[in-house]
Amino acid sequence: MGGDNAPEAIVTGCIDALKEKEGFDILLIGNSDKINEILKKQGFQSERLKIEHTDEVVTGDDIPTKVVKQKKNSSMMLGFQMLKDKKGDVFVSAGNTGALLTGALFILGRLEGVDRPALAPLIPTKNGWCTLIDGGMNPSCKPVNYLQFGIMGSIYMKNMFNIENPRVGLVNVGSEHAKGNEVLKQAYSMFEKSDLNFVGNIEGNDILEGKADVVVTDGFTGNVLLKFLEGAASFMFGMLTSVYKKSLKNKVSAMMIKGDLKKFKRSIDPDLNGGAPILGINGLVLKSHGSSNAKTIRTVILKAFDLASTSYQKQIGEAFEKMEVEKIDNDE
Amino acid sequence: MGGDNAPEAIVTGCIDALKEKEGFDILLIGNSDKINEILKKQGFQSERLKIEHTDEVVTGDDIPTKVVKQKKNSSMMLGFQMLKDKKGDVFVSAGNTGALLTGALFILGRLEGVDRPALAPLIPTKNGWCTLIDGGMNPSCKPVNYLQFGIMGSIYMKNMFNIENPRVGLVNVGSEHAKGNEVLKQAYSMFEKSDLNFVGNIEGNDILEGKADVVVTDGFTGNVLLKFLEGAASFMFGMLTSVYKKSLKNKVSAMMIKGDLKKFKRSIDPDLNGGAPILGINGLVLKSHGSSNAKTIRTVILKAFDLASTSYQKQIGEAFEKMEVEKIDNDE
Repeated sequence: MGGDNAPEAIVTGCIDALKEKEGFDILLIGNSDKINEILKKQGFQSERLKIEHTDEVVTGDDIPTKVVKQKKNSSMMLGFQMLKDKKGDVFVSAGNTGALLTGALFILGRLEGVDRPALAPLIPTKNGWCTLIDGGMNPSCKPVNYLQFGIMGSIYMKNMFNIENPRVGLVNVGSEHAKGNEVLKQAYSMFEKSDLNFVGNIEGNDILEGKADVVVTDGFTGNVLLKFLEGAASFMFGMLTSVYKKSLKNKVSAMMIKGDLKKFKRSIDPDLNGGAPILGINGLVLKSHGSSNAKTIRTVILKAFDLASTSYQKQIGEAFEKMEVEKIDNDE
Repeated sequence: MGGDNAPEAIVTGCIDALKEKEGFDILLIGNSDKINEILKKQGFQSERLKIEHTDEVVTGDDIPTKVVKQKKNSSMMLGFQMLKDKKGDVFVSAGNTGALLTGALFILGRLEGVDRPALAPLIPTKNGWCTLIDGGMNPSCKPVNYLQFGIMGSIYMKNMFNIENPRVGLVNVGSEHAKGNEVLKQAYSMFEKSDLNFVGNIEGNDILEGKADVVVTDGFTGNVLLKFLEGAASFMFGMLTSVYKKSLKNKVSAMMIKGDLKKFKRSIDPDLNGGAPILGINGLVLKSHGSSNAKTIRTVILKAFDLASTSYQKQIGEAFEKMEVEKIDNDE
């Protein structure tokens, strides 16, 4: 029931995903009347799609901490509870981000050894995709948090994109090791001592250049960057469109290249590589953005299936089991 | 002598600016042999261009605080000293950013009442240009710093773009007033009480949408955003170029639209609207980026002339004279 286009886009996206791939079932949590209406309209019926009815919904205006206590029967909180009770392998939501992050933390809890879970969205680069971690869960961070983001992000990218030894970069205002505040300097030296493939500090312009597969930053910077990128893409394509509409000659030129431009646009479209996992919690949760359409949801569902088929969650757990806890405590 | 392409690009840009507009003189500070060689090569001679010789140069590797003490005869530090001694109205440099910011602070000093000076670069938006302040001088800020950035940025935009009542936005991770950490919440309430045209919190995607004329943020976020934008533009144009080269049909399409695309590229080219002032110091200083070419320098010189013709520096001084100092102290 979450997101701007729910439940229509959610249900449609789920149907599309089920039609495309075998091997998984979907349990939709929400208003069964509304869901059934959409299923009927689309003439879809399958053993693989079931409904768990609830009337309660988390809205965009709900305050995250209150949701966890007062909306226990909301589709989102029920989702967390059912995931915790092993009634599913992975939980997908396009709802209120704050509530989703808070619910994941309160209901599912952190993996042992993880100090701060983080959101790991993908962004396009010249070479493919990188993950930006933290995408908005922790506005400010301790040195050890950056290190843990790097570890979790590496395991995620290794499993999702088969990158043998993901390059980890720390977002900073200069490439020299002595840049940034004390927290970033300490994080830098922790990275240097780690087993990660640390490529050092990276600057804003290095991110889309693809200098790192795992781009580590605090949740404030991460959130602003993510949304800025969204704005930049819309800005550029908007400007291009107006250039193309300027004259008849331009319109003809646009028609000639339309297919390839669309392909390019698709290649960097987060809707087609969407879904950000919350890394470091006890359970597999994928956040799809609030304006998700059916196409986005279809992608996220298929990605959720891929993720659930890897052992990355287990690998993250193991990585932190082996981490010396004193090392973490020293920095707190 | 500063920047990747000095002194050739600097001297050429100055010549171009002098040829384009009357009403100002330029004093070039640096190696007179090298400068004269370029002038000779270009066949340029004018009463309006003079040289102040020095052999010492600040390099990109120099440590800012050391430069101020140990390289007093460098072209950059001489520039500050000469500006302080009123031997010029405005100082332009494409050199080491850290050294420039430190030198401005140490040699020229802050305007009375200003707690933290800030860098105010321009970035393109859907409606024109906005200033991003702080562009990299203060990695972390107190609430009053954000307010002062807003005041200085407003006066700058009013004078540079004739905007009657510039809209000031505070970069945050959500538009609601209660978003962000304590510092940002306090800054928000200070803005609300101010005389500024405060439009509230703005998110990453609002910046290029042009929701504010003055985009206020800390120097860490500002620096990362600026460089990210640089990277995003190069990413998009790079991708477009490869789409255009893909086939003969695409090449023909590109030829048809070439002129208009160039115009669009120019309309968002920071080289053509370059030069970021350091606001809040005792003197007019414009920073041009390290990779400045002759075109950039020409733009910055003409902008420096425009700036020196306004009274924005005086207006900033007056704004802070009137500010109650206790208010500032309370927040420290």
